[in-house]
Amino acid sequence: METLTASPIDDAVARARRAIDTMYAADVAAQSLGIEVLEVVPGNVRIAMTVRPDMLNAHGICHGGFLFALADTALAYACNSRGEPMVAAGASIEFLAPVGLGERLIASARETSRSARHGIYDVAVSDASGEPRAHFRGRCARLRTPSGS
Amino acid sequence: METLTASPIDDAVARARRAIDTMYAADVAAQSLGIEVLEVVPGNVRIAMTVRPDMLNAHGICHGGFLFALADTALAYACNSRGEPMVAAGASIEFLAPVGLGERLIASARETSRSARHGIYDVAVSDASGEPRAHFRGRCARLRTPSGS
Amino acid sequence: METLTASPIDDAVARARRAIDTMYAADVAAQSLGIEVLEVVPGNVRIAMTVRPDMLNAHGICHGGFLFALADTALAYACNSRGEPMVAAGASIEFLAPVGLGERLIASARETSRSARHGIYDVAVSDASGEPRAHFRGRCARLRTPSGS
Amino acid sequence: METLTASPIDDAVARARRAIDTMYAADVAAQSLGIEVLEVVPGNVRIAMTVRPDMLNAHGICHGGFLFALADTALAYACNSRGEPMVAAGASIEFLAPVGLGERLIASARETSRSARHGIYDVAVSDASGEPRAHFRGRCARLRTPSGS
Repeated sequence: METLTASPIDDAVARARRAIDTMYAADVAAQSLGIEVLEVVPGNVRIAMTVRPDMLNAHGICHGGFLFALADTALAYACNSRGEPMVAAGASIEFLAPVGLGERLIASARETSRSARHGIYDVAVSDASGEPRAHFRGRCARLRTPSGS
Repeated sequence: METLTASPIDDAVARARRAIDTMYAADVAAQSLGIEVLEVVPGNVRIAMTVRPDMLNAHGICHGGFLFALADTALAYACNSRGEPMVAAGASIEFLAPVGLGERLIASARETSRSARHGIYDVAVSDASGEPRAHFRGRCARLRTPSGS
Repeated sequence: METLTASPIDDAVARARRAIDTMYAADVAAQSLGIEVLEVVPGNVRIAMTVRPDMLNAHGICHGGFLFALADTALAYACNSRGEPMVAAGASIEFLAPVGLGERLIASARETSRSARHGIYDVAVSDASGEPRAHFRGRCARLRTPSGS
Repeated sequence: METLTASPIDDAVARARRAIDTMYAADVAAQSLGIEVLEVVPGNVRIAMTVRPDMLNAHGICHGGFLFALADTALAYACNSRGEPMVAAGASIEFLAPVGLGERLIASARETSRSARHGIYDVAVSDASGEPRAHFRGRCARLRTPSGS
């Protein structure tokens, strides 16, 4: 009887979740980083990653590249949660505080702007207590197909 | 007789190279990414990385996080090549063209600005033919020690 | 009897407003740009500016420099609304849509991150109908005094 | 007899200079800021501006908006010096040191990347002694016309 009671909003959320589950299944990089998808709604996602020994840099803290990779994955999932394929065009990140071995990080992506061709997404990377460790802003563009844009 | 003929510039280059070799030896993340250090002079470095299957995203191309990680490593080595410890504070990256499996990438970091406390480094990520695939600009700050900065 | 009923929150808001009114009175640039201060609470401000003929570039639209100047002023007021003096260290801006002569723009600054030494503020620049025209992210740092930081 | 001896490079430089002179003549904002065009070659320009009293912020130093406006103008002229019309899509700026009243600033724009649709330009803003005061990186995109892009 579930389908009888599902609202349009529920449908949109279910579609977004399925789209990202499919994307994640093909995303070898996200899987190899140990990323988990926690929550998906159209335009917004929450994902998680735990810092492993092979992610530590010469200072013994998480390499900035892995913090970026987590945030960039959140961007990819958020901007593809509406159905039309988008790719990241660029991003900036601010590192607020070092992250140590074994810490579990949550990246929350929020849709700040979206048009037919472009989008801006802000991603906060926080620790288990909710303290922000990095802020990321990414831009995405509609994926051009060989037949046009 | 080597010490008789070494110029001050040769000495500075040798010191920079040793500093980065020591840093790389402790940089588990860079090693796990398969990064190689090609060239180090004070303020500038060139490093390389080859795209592996576990670096591919859902589009089958290199995940932006790994392009960033390569560029961020070049920033870390360039800004630490002068002896005083620095850490990345933030960065921006522009993705110019997709990068495929097996491609060998070269990241060249150039010192754009440097003061006692801050630095700006520009990193070009290019393919084997020298074509740029990404441009990165990173900011670093002097590492604060417990006793002050 | 006003002081008897004022809550601590009212006091903080009144202090923030006074701090920014004083700052604005000394801010010749903001005045020369025709900027008005609409609202100030600790960490957040809303200001406005109307595009004048001398702000138009060769395409006949508002020069990006003036959009940035509006957003940068919102950053300055937001990051100084808490009492401790801060200065802008850097910023990025995305231009979403052109802005024409006579349009009234509202810049809303929001505190995304704040520590004793640094802050990140996001500023949305919107038109009269609330449509975003630019998104700005600025970083500020505690103003160093001659006696130390 | 000049035309007989002009090389293709001389021609390209002369065309770029004419294109930017025409653009400047229509750029009310650049004129109102007192900007002067010093040098134009395809992809690169040098322009100057002197800090006026109406450009000073509440700290008595040049408002960041005017430093950005100078750099953004250099971006606009550099990216339009090749004939195809481009507009700024976004930019980032790092403020290195305060700039005082009466200082003459030089903005030098360099083409870092250029394709048919996009470009990246780096602009250094320096004082009269050549000391950098700000670094700017701007992105531009091909201007879309109503008939297509």
